[in-house]
Amino acid sequence: MNKKVYFAGSIRGGRADAALYRRLIAYIQRTDTVLTEHVGQPEMEQKEMGAEQDAAIYAQDTAWLRESDLLIAECSNPSLGVGYELAYAESLGKPCYIFYDRRRTQLSAMLTGDKYFHVLPYEREEEIFPALDEILK
Amino acid sequence: MNKKVYFAGSIRGGRADAALYRRLIAYIQRTDTVLTEHVGQPEMEQKEMGAEQDAAIYAQDTAWLRESDLLIAECSNPSLGVGYELAYAESLGKPCYIFYDRRRTQLSAMLTGDKYFHVLPYEREEEIFPALDEILK
Repeated sequence: MNKKVYFAGSIRGGRADAALYRRLIAYIQRTDTVLTEHVGQPEMEQKEMGAEQDAAIYAQDTAWLRESDLLIAECSNPSLGVGYELAYAESLGKPCYIFYDRRRTQLSAMLTGDKYFHVLPYEREEEIFPALDEILK
Repeated sequence: MNKKVYFAGSIRGGRADAALYRRLIAYIQRTDTVLTEHVGQPEMEQKEMGAEQDAAIYAQDTAWLRESDLLIAECSNPSLGVGYELAYAESLGKPCYIFYDRRRTQLSAMLTGDKYFHVLPYEREEEIFPALDEILK
């Protein structure tokens, strides 16, 4: 209850799962705070914004990582940014939970092989919600 | 000359650029050592290997990151593992050079916005080789 969650999902790596991110974020928001609500917004800009604006995004996202109580990532879609955020959160000692659809994704060994992470493969979206309840309780 | 290079490229995130990785690795090997030569091998297994083997991959790759003098990444293909490796190398203070094809890739703001990284967009593969000469000299 009232935890600050950094939700991580692909933006420039591809938006195939944007609607899924939005459903997960909305579910978390019933009880807790999502610092990165924009990750689920369908109109998110995927283009590079230029050096100054990209530096501002980086500064904001790393500030949110430091402020967060935990990180929840949906990793079915490959993403350089999410990989970076996971390592950054690990270096801060933030608990990290990684969901991915095992029917369509082979997750990186840098994540599955890192015992620090809680890796939670699923086959149906409905499995995610009780796992979120457990994480957030 | 004789630098130890950690070359980072997508494996489970997709092998569309595997032949490019191989050409870049071969070029670097003319003068220096590539710890991660397998990243360019066409027959690399993309499937998850199970907890024990993935943990061994993670242990080996992070050992190579610690041993390396610098990291060179080809980031045109999104990859959770490469994003993780970049943040890990940054945390160790290793110089990091990121190449990507700007005609087909919008690079993550977690990379373009992080002033620690040397980001080198290119439009033609031939531009990469003189940049590598400069990095490795």
